[in-house]
Formats: sequence, C-alpha cells, structure tokens
Amino acid sequence: MYHHVKQLMYTVRVGTPDPRFGNMLLEQFGGANGELAAAMQYSVQGLNCDDPDRKDLLMDIGTEELSHLEIVGTLARLHLRPLKNNRDAAIADPMMAIAGGGGVNLYNSMGDPWTADYLKITGELDVDLRSNIAAEARAKIVYERLINFCEDADSIDALKFLMTREITHMKAFTAALESMGKPQFSIGAIPPTPGLVSQYFNDSTGVGDRGEVDVRGPWNQGGDWEFVEAPAFQELQSEIMGTREPSEDGGSERRTPPASTQKTGPKKRTA
Amino acid sequence: MYHHVKQLMYTVRVGTPDPRFGNMLLEQFGGANGELAAAMQYSVQGLNCDDPDRKDLLMDIGTEELSHLEIVGTLARLHLRPLKNNRDAAIADPMMAIAGGGGVNLYNSMGDPWTADYLKITGELDVDLRSNIAAEARAKIVYERLINFCEDADSIDALKFLMTREITHMKAFTAALESMGKPQFSIGAIPPTPGLVSQYFNDSTGVGDRGEVDVRGPWNQGGDWEFVEAPAFQELQSEIMGTREPSEDGGSERRTPPASTQKTGPKKRTA
Amino acid sequence: MYHHVKQLMYTVRVGTPDPRFGNMLLEQFGGANGELAAAMQYSVQGLNCDDPDRKDLLMDIGTEELSHLEIVGTLARLHLRPLKNNRDAAIADPMMAIAGGGGVNLYNSMGDPWTADYLKITGELDVDLRSNIAAEARAKIVYERLINFCEDADSIDALKFLMTREITHMKAFTAALESMGKPQFSIGAIPPTPGLVSQYFNDSTGVGDRGEVDVRGPWNQGGDWEFVEAPAFQELQSEIMGTREPSEDGGSERRTPPASTQKTGPKKRTA
Amino acid sequence: MYHHVKQLMYTVRVGTPDPRFGNMLLEQFGGANGELAAAMQYSVQGLNCDDPDRKDLLMDIGTEELSHLEIVGTLARLHLRPLKNNRDAAIADPMMAIAGGGGVNLYNSMGDPWTADYLKITGELDVDLRSNIAAEARAKIVYERLINFCEDADSIDALKFLMTREITHMKAFTAALESMGKPQFSIGAIPPTPGLVSQYFNDSTGVGDRGEVDVRGPWNQGGDWEFVEAPAFQELQSEIMGTREPSEDGGSERRTPPASTQKTGPKKRTA
Amino acid sequence: MYHHVKQLMYTVRVGTPDPRFGNMLLEQFGGANGELAAAMQYSVQGLNCDDPDRKDLLMDIGTEELSHLEIVGTLARLHLRPLKNNRDAAIADPMMAIAGGGGVNLYNSMGDPWTADYLKITGELDVDLRSNIAAEARAKIVYERLINFCEDADSIDALKFLMTREITHMKAFTAALESMGKPQFSIGAIPPTPGLVSQYFNDSTGVGDRGEVDVRGPWNQGGDWEFVEAPAFQELQSEIMGTREPSEDGGSERRTPPASTQKTGPKKRTA
Amino acid sequence: MYHHVKQLMYTVRVGTPDPRFGNMLLEQFGGANGELAAAMQYSVQGLNCDDPDRKDLLMDIGTEELSHLEIVGTLARLHLRPLKNNRDAAIADPMMAIAGGGGVNLYNSMGDPWTADYLKITGELDVDLRSNIAAEARAKIVYERLINFCEDADSIDALKFLMTREITHMKAFTAALESMGKPQFSIGAIPPTPGLVSQYFNDSTGVGDRGEVDVRGPWNQGGDWEFVEAPAFQELQSEIMGTREPSEDGGSERRTPPASTQKTGPKKRTA
Repeated sequence: MYHHVKQLMYTVRVGTPDPRFGNMLLEQFGGANGELAAAMQYSVQGLNCDDPDRKDLLMDIGTEELSHLEIVGTLARLHLRPLKNNRDAAIADPMMAIAGGGGVNLYNSMGDPWTADYLKITGELDVDLRSNIAAEARAKIVYERLINFCEDADSIDALKFLMTREITHMKAFTAALESMGKPQFSIGAIPPTPGLVSQYFNDSTGVGDRGEVDVRGPWNQGGDWEFVEAPAFQELQSEIMGTREPSEDGGSERRTPPASTQKTGPKKRTA
Repeated sequence: MYHHVKQLMYTVRVGTPDPRFGNMLLEQFGGANGELAAAMQYSVQGLNCDDPDRKDLLMDIGTEELSHLEIVGTLARLHLRPLKNNRDAAIADPMMAIAGGGGVNLYNSMGDPWTADYLKITGELDVDLRSNIAAEARAKIVYERLINFCEDADSIDALKFLMTREITHMKAFTAALESMGKPQFSIGAIPPTPGLVSQYFNDSTGVGDRGEVDVRGPWNQGGDWEFVEAPAFQELQSEIMGTREPSEDGGSERRTPPASTQKTGPKKRTA
Repeated sequence: MYHHVKQLMYTVRVGTPDPRFGNMLLEQFGGANGELAAAMQYSVQGLNCDDPDRKDLLMDIGTEELSHLEIVGTLARLHLRPLKNNRDAAIADPMMAIAGGGGVNLYNSMGDPWTADYLKITGELDVDLRSNIAAEARAKIVYERLINFCEDADSIDALKFLMTREITHMKAFTAALESMGKPQFSIGAIPPTPGLVSQYFNDSTGVGDRGEVDVRGPWNQGGDWEFVEAPAFQELQSEIMGTREPSEDGGSERRTPPASTQKTGPKKRTA
Repeated sequence: MYHHVKQLMYTVRVGTPDPRFGNMLLEQFGGANGELAAAMQYSVQGLNCDDPDRKDLLMDIGTEELSHLEIVGTLARLHLRPLKNNRDAAIADPMMAIAGGGGVNLYNSMGDPWTADYLKITGELDVDLRSNIAAEARAKIVYERLINFCEDADSIDALKFLMTREITHMKAFTAALESMGKPQFSIGAIPPTPGLVSQYFNDSTGVGDRGEVDVRGPWNQGGDWEFVEAPAFQELQSEIMGTREPSEDGGSERRTPPASTQKTGPKKRTA
Repeated sequence: MYHHVKQLMYTVRVGTPDPRFGNMLLEQFGGANGELAAAMQYSVQGLNCDDPDRKDLLMDIGTEELSHLEIVGTLARLHLRPLKNNRDAAIADPMMAIAGGGGVNLYNSMGDPWTADYLKITGELDVDLRSNIAAEARAKIVYERLINFCEDADSIDALKFLMTREITHMKAFTAALESMGKPQFSIGAIPPTPGLVSQYFNDSTGVGDRGEVDVRGPWNQGGDWEFVEAPAFQELQSEIMGTREPSEDGGSERRTPPASTQKTGPKKRTA
Repeated sequence: MYHHVKQLMYTVRVGTPDPRFGNMLLEQFGGANGELAAAMQYSVQGLNCDDPDRKDLLMDIGTEELSHLEIVGTLARLHLRPLKNNRDAAIADPMMAIAGGGGVNLYNSMGDPWTADYLKITGELDVDLRSNIAAEARAKIVYERLINFCEDADSIDALKFLMTREITHMKAFTAALESMGKPQFSIGAIPPTPGLVSQYFNDSTGVGDRGEVDVRGPWNQGGDWEFVEAPAFQELQSEIMGTREPSEDGGSERRTPPASTQKTGPKKRTA
C-alpha cells in the first residue's frame, strides 16, 4: 500500500525557467534511465522476489524512486511552464506545448513515450541486482550531464541530491549482491562448458583508419584465458589460398561434435 | 568492415521441430536480452569508444554476438518451419506463420518488434561495461530457461554453447572494468554529497500479508550506513497526531537548505 | 514523497493458480486501461495541476492506484508462478516464462510493453477530468470481464474490490468536474463558430449488408441541430449527373469563405 | 464502402509557410489526439457496434474525421514544404525533411509514429461514448493551442473550422450517451460493492512545498461519501509509535474478509 | 472529403466463427502489410504528390483500401465475437477479449499496435510507387496464406476478392511507374559513381553447414558487373599470413582517396 | 559466422563537426530506411531463404550493409561529438547529448528507437526481392537528401560512396528477381479472379481545391483495364435521387454472389 505526503523529498526552486533545460530533464522523468524506470524496475522485482530480506531492499528503493520521480517532474514542470504561452519556448518541446499545455508527461527529451522495454527484470535475484547496479551507474552519469548543462543554481542543488542517491543505491545493491555469497560468475544452475568458457575469440582484427589495433589485456590473456585467433578467418584463409589442410575432424567437426564428446568451440590458435 | 563466412560458429541440428519451442527461442533472436541486442549494444559502444584497448574488446564480442544471432536464428527457423503449412503449428506464432511464412523475424516470443530501447549505451566506458556485465548475466539465465524447456538434445547442445559464451563475455567485461582501476562506486567526475550518500531511507515498512518485514542487512547497516526511518512518515505522523514539534528549521529545512549550506537530506533517525 | 507499507490494500489469495487467467490479468497491470496507466495519468496530472483543490484529489486517487497496481501484480504473480517450471503453463505467456522466470512485468496480455502513449494528459483540468471519467469507466468494464472469466473465488473477491473502486473514482472525478461550474460544452477559451457548431454532417448513408440504415436521434435532430445531408455527396451527384446548378458562390465558396465573412460549413440540406 | 471527392471539406490556404508551425500541426495529423486517432476510434467502434442507431452516429463522425485528416494534412504539407530544400527549415523536423522530402507523414510533432495505442475502444457502447466525449474535449483544446501559436490568418480559419467541429461531435456523443438512459455511474452488469463504493481514501496528506493541503470538496464529502483517512497510515503510525491497539479483527481482517462476509474496504475514520 | 456508404464493397458471411482464424485475420486489419497500412500509405503519398495524374491514382487506391479495411474488420469481428463470453475462445486473443469485449481493434495477430512505422513514404514519386508495388506483393501473399488456413468457404470468397484487388493495384502502380519514363535504375538527381556502381562485393564466402556455397549469377556476373572478392578479406589475409604486399596506394588508399581523385571502392579481384 | 576488420569500407573524415547534420545522419544509422534496417532485412531473409543461389546474394549484401552501418555511425559520431560538452550543440539531439554523452545510438533524427517494424520480410523470395528493390530506392533518395544538406566535402565523399552502393544493390536484386523467371504479376500460387483483377475502381472523383481532376492513364485504361466509376457512388446516387432502378441482381448481388457463381466485383461503367 502506498501513501503520499505532499512535501517533496527535496524541495525544488527555479530562478529563471529554462525550457531547453526542462526538455533535457525529461530524460530523468520519462526517459530510459529515469526515475520511473528505476521505480518500476525495483518495485516489480520486489513484487516478484522470494528472498524476504532483499525484497525489503527492493521495495525501499523502489519507493524512494517514486519520490524522486516527483522531484524531477516538479523541476521539469517549472522549467517547461513557458511552453504554454510562449511560442519561442514551445519549440523546445512542441508536444509538451501543444498536447500538454506546458505540463510534463512521461516522455523523454526527444518525445519518446516511456516504455516497459526500458526495464530489466528477470526474476533471478542476483541477476536483477546486477541490472540494478548498472542502472544506478547510468542514472548517475545522466544526472552529472544534466548538472553540467544546467545554469540554475537551485536546480543544480536538487540534481545533486538526486545524483547522490543513485550512488547510495548502487552501494546498497552491491552489498545485497555480495551478501548472497554467490561466486562471481555463477549465474543460475547450469554450469558453463569448461574449456569453451575460457576461450577468447578474436573476432575483430586488423588496423583501423584511426590506428585501432588488436589488443591483449586481462580480458583475453593471463589466468585461464585461451586466445582463439579469428575463428571465421582460419578456414577462409586456407580456402582462398588453396592451402586448406585436409583434416578428418577439422572445421566442421569442431562445431558439430557428437553429443557425447567434449565441445571445445573454435580451434584455438596454436601459437 | 564485416565479412561473413557461411559456416555457422556452432552447427545446429534439430531432430523434431517444436514450433512452441521455436517461438520461445525468439526471445534470444529478437528479444530484449537476445543476440541482436548484445551485438548492437557492444558494437555501438565500440564505435563510440575512445579507449583503444577496450574498444577492441567491444568489437570482438559485438562481432561474436552477430555469429550467435545467426545460430539462434537458424535454430529457431528449423523449429518454426512447420508454421508455413500446418495450421495447428501456426498457432504457436500467427505472425510468423501468416506474415512470415514460417521464417524468423526480429520479434520476441510475444511478437514484440526488436527495439533499440533494449540497448543500454551511455558513452561512459565503465558504466557501459557494468551494463554489459548485467546484460550477459541476463542472457545466461534466459538460455538456461530455454534449455530447461527444450526437449531436443541437439538444440540443447547449441544452447549450451551459446550459454557458455555469455559467461565468457561476463568474465571479459569484468576484467576490462577492473583493469580500468576506478574505485568501485566512482562514476563520472562529480562526487556524491558526503553524508547523504550514506543514508539508507527505510521507505517501505510494516508487515506484509505474507509476513514480509523490515530487514537490516549489509545494505543498510554497518560500515558508514546511516539508517533513516521512513522519511515521509516522520512528519506526517506528528501532523496527524497533533503533536508536531515546533521547529524553526525542521522538516522543511532539511529539504530546502539554503544554497550555501550543507545538504544532508532527510533527518536521520535518532536511535 | 511516497511511503510504502507492506500490507496490501486488499489481501489476495489464490486457490489454484491459473496461468491463462494470470496472463489475462496483466491487462490491468501493464495494459492500456490498467492500474499503472491510472496511477500515472492522475499523478502526473496532479503534478501539473494549478487548482489546489482538485490537485489534492488527483494525488489521492493517483496514489490509491499505485496500491491497486500492487494488488493486481501480486494476484497475477500467484497465477503465473507455474510458468517458471512448467512448460505447458509457459505457453500462456512465453515471455513471462522465459525472460521473466514466471514473474510479472509491465506488459499486457499480448506482451505489449506498457507505454506512456496510453496516457491522456492535457494540462487543461476539466479536459483531464473528462479523460479520467472515461478511463474509470473503461477500467470498470475490464475488471468485469476478468471476473466473468475467473474461476477462483478468492481472486474474484479481490477483483470486485478493485472494480468497485473504479466506480468510486468515477464518481469523485465527476463531482470534481461538475463543481468547477463550467458549461457542459465549454472547453478552453475560444468559442466554437456559431451555426457551424450545430450542423450534423450525415457522412455515412445508405443501407448496409446487415440492414444498417441512416438514423435520426437526439444527436442529430431537435434542439438547435441542423442536419446536413452528405456534404461530399451533394456536389458529386450533380457533377456526375450533369445537372450541376450554376452558382457564383456555390460549393467552393462555402468552404473557402473570405476571411471577413461568416463561415457556415457545408450547405445545409434544404428540406 | 468509402468514396473520396477531391474537394476538401474546408479549403485551406497558407500565406507564408511556417515550418515550425507545420511541425506543431502534426500533432493533429499523426498525434495522440489527432484526426487519424479520432477517425479510427469512431470507425472501429462503429464496426463493432451492435446498436444500430448509434452505429450510424459512429460511422458519420468517423468518416467526417477522415475528411478532417485530409484538411490538416494539406495544411501541414503547405507549411512543411520548405523542408525539402531549405536546411534551416529542415531543422523544424529533420525526419520529414530527410526521410519525407518535405511531405507529411503520420508522426507527431516530436516524430513519434502514430500508434493504435492512442485508441480507446472497449466494445461497451456507453463506455466508448464516454471515451469519445473526452477525446473531443482533448482535440478541442489542442486546436485552441495551435490557433494561439499560429501567425497565419488563413490557417487560423481552417483551424477554427476544425475546432468547432470537435464541439459538435462532443455534443452529439453526449446526446447519444444520455439517450441510452443508463444511470450515470452504472457501467456494465456487475454492481459495485455497496459501502466500499462510497469511501473516499485520503491517500495524499500533509502540506506541500507550495502550500498544497488536504481539501474537502463535493468529491469526498456530502452525499453518501465516507471519508477514510490515510488507509496505509493508520496502522503504520501505531506500529512505529508502539501504541498499536490490540484488535482481534483489525487491520488485516478488513482487507481479508472471509469470503462469505461483507467486504468494506479500509477502516473508515471514526470522526 | 470522404463519404461512407453502409454497404460493404464485398459482403461477408461467416458460417462457423473461428476465433483462431479471426486472430490471424488481424494481420490484414492492424498488421504491417494490412489494409490500414495500404490505405494510409497511398492516401498520404497522394496528399504529398505534385504529379496531378498519379495523385489521382494514389487517392483512388488509397480510398479503395479503406473499403477493404472495413471488409476485413467485419470479417474478423464475426470470427472473434465468441471471445466476449467464451473463455476458451478468449485464449485466441486475450487482449481483444478482455480489453475489447470481442470486438476488433487495430492490432495484429500478436497484439502489436498498428504503427506508422509500417509506412514507406518518401515524397519521391517513383520511389513511392516502387514501395507500393512491393507492398501489394506482400499483401497478396499474406491473403494467400490466410486462405490456406481458412476453413470457412464464405470467408475464403471474401479473401479471394481482397487478394485479387492487390494484384490489380500492383498492375496499376507498375503502369504508373513505367509511364513516368524514368530509366530503371535512375533514382533522384545525383548519379551514382561510375565503376563503383558496377562492383559486386562478395562479402559472404565459404561453405555452409547445409552446403551453402558462393554463387555466380546474373546479379554479379555478365553485363558490366565487376566481381570483388571479399573486400575485408584481401588485406586481413596478407596481414595474418605475413605476406602483405607493400603498396604505396593500396588498400587504405582506395578507401581514403584524396578528395580530388576518383573513388573506386574496394579493389577488384584480379582474376 | 561474422568477422570484423578494423578498417572501414570507406574511410571517413570530417572537417568541421556539424551537430545538426550529425543528427540528420542518424536517419541512415537507426532510421527506417537506414543501414541497420537494410542489413537486418537482407540477412534475415537470407537466413530464411531456401533458394541456395539467391541466399548467397542476400548474405553478401546483408553483410555489406553492416559495413555501411559502421561507416555511417562513424561519420555521425564525428559530427555529434560536440554534444557532450557544448550545450548549444546538445540542442541538436538532447537524448544523444544527455543519455548518450555525444555518442551515437540506434535512433533516428527525431529520437525514435530503431524497430523491427521497419523490416519487410515475408519468406516469399520474389516478394522479398521486390521489397528490397524498393528499400534500395528509398535509401538512395535519403542519401541524396543528406548530400544536399551537407556542407562538409569529406562527408559528401563518404555519402556518395554509400549512395552509389544502393544503386548497385538495386541492380543486383532486380537481376535476381528477373532471373527467377516468374511472370511479372504472378505472386504466390493462387491466381487472382479473372475479370475482377482488371477492374479499376474510380474511388476518388470530382475537382479538387487546387484543380485536381480525374485522370485516365495507362494504369486505368488500355490493355484489359475496365474502368468502374465510383463503386460506392452509383447506388447512393439513385437512392438519394429517388431513381433507384429495380434490379433483381443489382448492386447487392454483385457483392454477395452465390458461392457457386462468378464474382465480378462492382458494376462496370457502361460507357
């Protein structure tokens, strides 16, 4: 059950309305990484959650995001109010001006309607927490960009409040995930295929127009990484060059192993 | 520049086509967590990326996902082929039957068109990597569920190949993030407001119909966590009870601090 | 500011989960006339509202709808739970099964994502209240249909609670509109063109395959109604028949009056 | 069966094309409350309608809206024509310029594609008529705003014609609803639960940052209204205050009544 | 201006309603290649069209498609009527049953809302005619599939009428395009780059799992076709093999020609 | 299987970034006729294709379009880069600025997310080829318009490369269609109804406000065309005029023929 108190969680003031900035603010009202998306993602995850502890967490933060939605909406409303009567201002967001009379609605800065397609909800708690950590990181950077484009000191205060809370949530979700005690790369119940899981496929090669090159880093060397050079390329090369080596169990075998044998994925590069 | 070789990265076979399963498979072809979403998310991030090392990583994996898209599409195509001529089968996905003639298209299991709204691309590299880690976790659990509903051994082989690769990518993205050397909760350049960032708002309280209760855990106690009891509730209570304590700068002050003073957010609970 | 209490506004129980019915219930969770649509429509209208009295009303009901969203979601969750492990059940909603693990999400019974395009928000208070009255009427009939298709007594109890509340809201919105004291057909500030406003255009004529005929009723006769026979037809007829009457200011004049003269719209039928 | 005559229902002229205004006009061409939405809503309702009298009405007005669509499209086309060759003009709507060559298309002023999600069609005649009354009110206010932003006298003439017709339709739909003779709040066949239907839940309380307060009005007092103070709040308060009164059948009972007893919803406030 | 006559262009009858088939029929009512898409595509093209002759054609056929929309809607309505009261039938389309009361709406067989994104309108007449020819071909094959899945003789009659008309329109659009007298591959005003326009890039090579091979045909040999072997591959190969031939103006030059020199695209294969 | 080489198929350079133009370029990145749409349309058609020869063609061109997507994305990225730090520039595309940090994403110039609804895929090879021919024509004209609005010589070079390739593909698809040897208007297996297929319905008549008139041309006269005057009109006229001729098998018969008799559609005009 929800209850609303009329006071905002953070009182907003606006000196000079800035319709262009109000339009940008809609990214956090009805946009992909905005407050409604956050509120709905966590609240619906909470509704589905069978872990009583983290369910409480999801409902706490889901509810806080509703209060944030109200803050952002109020702030945007103040900046967009001139759209109703001022045609120059209306250009900042014709839909909010003509269809909305200068009020806000759940659309982003380009007029896209908020859609549940923004949500990442899987019903697998640790996976959902990872999605939430990423969502908070995205929301944080979006608030930072809004602050950078904002010329109104009071608006900046409110945005800093909201931005800070995203980090709070990121920390809480991270603690909730870590306290589950699952190994870092263990998702669900079916284990990945050993060997194959450690192969890094070098699918993009060559030198780019701006000097881009192939790179080795901790994401493809060291540990148990096995580096597989251009899986698609190995065979094509021999084909075109006319030097394809005969092999009883060559290219096609590696990709269509008998069900009973080990699957190893593409050939590794024999250094 | 892209090149296509006709051999699949993992050869697929289907014993008995299973149209209902073919329809489910579309989640990974044109669905929210599917292979096109992965391919586009990483490739477009790569295109935007200014870090030459991790740009290579993004292009490698983005390209591999295109090869996965082809595998999933081929597998779904084999399971959906009966839709063309068999009306009973067509019920599994009328749109693919009537509009598609039993072929696949970039729609999910409920017929929603693939949309770029599925993508999480911010142009902030470490944030994007977090989104990718979460995306791989989601894709892994979706493949696991498909495996659990699949009755065809050959299809399961292919799905295990694909599922395994998601973990591979999750590991690579994690290594790429960690090797950036950023503090765990440092996003962007503007720091969160001290104090406020450590306050946990207990916005969902009481006892639920199924015994849900308020919970304390590492996500709201210990460390520098400060627990704020029901921010909205503190004031309302006094209002309704008629016992609102007089305060010159009380409730409203905390939310409308003078621009020059420290912002601390809602009152903490004085235990 | 929002606060959540864990107890539902109406406790739900489900005897035997019914996945097909759970799927239907999603119409009121993530569907066009569902509880999120209601909650957002009224709350955002409230946020935009400059009338302090009716703003309170909008926030009251907007908040109640959030509590309803939670009830419907909990109920649907209980009916859809078998989707996670039971493939036969999964057919009722493959996306909720495969992508959602048997949990709910903000999609309707056909898997369409909830979209802000469902909302009717104009920022003109009396117009918004009319939209709300219609919205409540729609929600009521949808609940009635769900009740008619529901075989679980406990679920029916919950649905009757929700259905009843829609009528409550319909009454409240109607009272709010009437108490504004605006004339019934006065919208905005610019008056309609006299004369033209009373003309009824008979644009659909003839006898249909199932005996459909032209009808006169209080919507086109009596009062100040003026009946205009087939505006398009009058001229065409004469053209084809070769009997077009010469007229200096005939057909085209009526549609392109000099800016300074009275505009009367299409010719009225001279009975 | 439809027939088209080449003459417009209202001839449009444009003195100086105004691309920004042409873009705004698209709200009534391909927008949420625009002419295609009206035409399709009424025509499809008409197609479904089993009441022969009001079916004729729905077809009459649905058809007239097609003629209005043509007027708006022609007017927008004249204002947008410079987009084809003038890059400054093209900024007013880059999609119409680049993809459309300066022609119109069924998108709104922010480029959103027209979608059937705009439509409100339930197949319950009196409900549909309520939706139509609201739709006409919305369309009227949108035309008024367009008129207010329009600097071309000829365009204003056409817009006044269209605006007036919305009131005509609003009157006709109202007469059609009233002549059905249904009690005002009787929707469908299942009656609301007595008692519960008259309870007003005060779900938003306190004093807002701009002085918003709780308000009593004809929508929650007088008649048979029963005012229920903050349903969620009553219990929480006692819980936190440590003064929860013992009750055998208290809070939870009210929400989970035995199936055989009367359901009364949340406790009423005992004044 | 439009006029509607109540008689259908083709009277429809339905022996035994078939809800599953009714659901399939929605592909031609609110689906991507359906009658509304056709009606709107041609009518809006017509509205934009500056060629007086072909503008008439576009309006003729655009209007006819509205009459077809009415036929398909009536037919689908008859097949879907049982959805209102029969729960087993309702499974065929829960949204039409619960939200629509067994009536039709502008959604396809999977419940996707009709969207203007289905339309292909460029404002370039000959291009639009090509889009229309393709659209008619698609609509024809969709009707054929519906006929193949239809078990009701009367419905088949109506579908054959509609299917036939698509071919009629395809012929008319083809004649309209041919009579414009434009060379077959001349689009717009800027000519393609000579040489480059005749190069066929063999971007997909090798042998597939089902024996797919590289093929030469009239689309890449004969005439002025120049066959370019795997543009991406040529350089990579040499790179990996260590045999990259030194070239002053080799691969990279061809892609970054000085602005003043001829652009020839990727190297042709020197046979 | 796909492989990526870092070099672009056409190296792009940008002198002075032009954010407004960068925004326009997104039409070809994430827009309806853009490179992702082309890549996906052809590649998915190829995946479904059972004709081994044309399957190779579809994969060749589908892959080339991926390389084009990369070119357009790189070019747009260079033009949009100022969005990240320059607020004036950000106005060109607030979503790309705020949510994307100045990077590109798969949205069009108005911020619409790329959607699979752009694709035309039927699984009927010759129909798909027609859709592809039209798609290439559209893409060509869009590139031409971009060139006309582009002020940067290097960008124009790249756009000319891309524009030229569309004509190449149009030629290839045309050759592939023609080499199938199907009669021009033969689609699918069920023949159209003779007689009816040759009737042209004159559904739009009269004289328009700008002098539009009824036109005869090769699309409705000559050959086997039979011209049917205003099908809807013939009967209405007689009805209203009171001169409806008695006819046993008149108007209604023609539309409801006994199942066993010839269907001829609307009456032809007896010249």
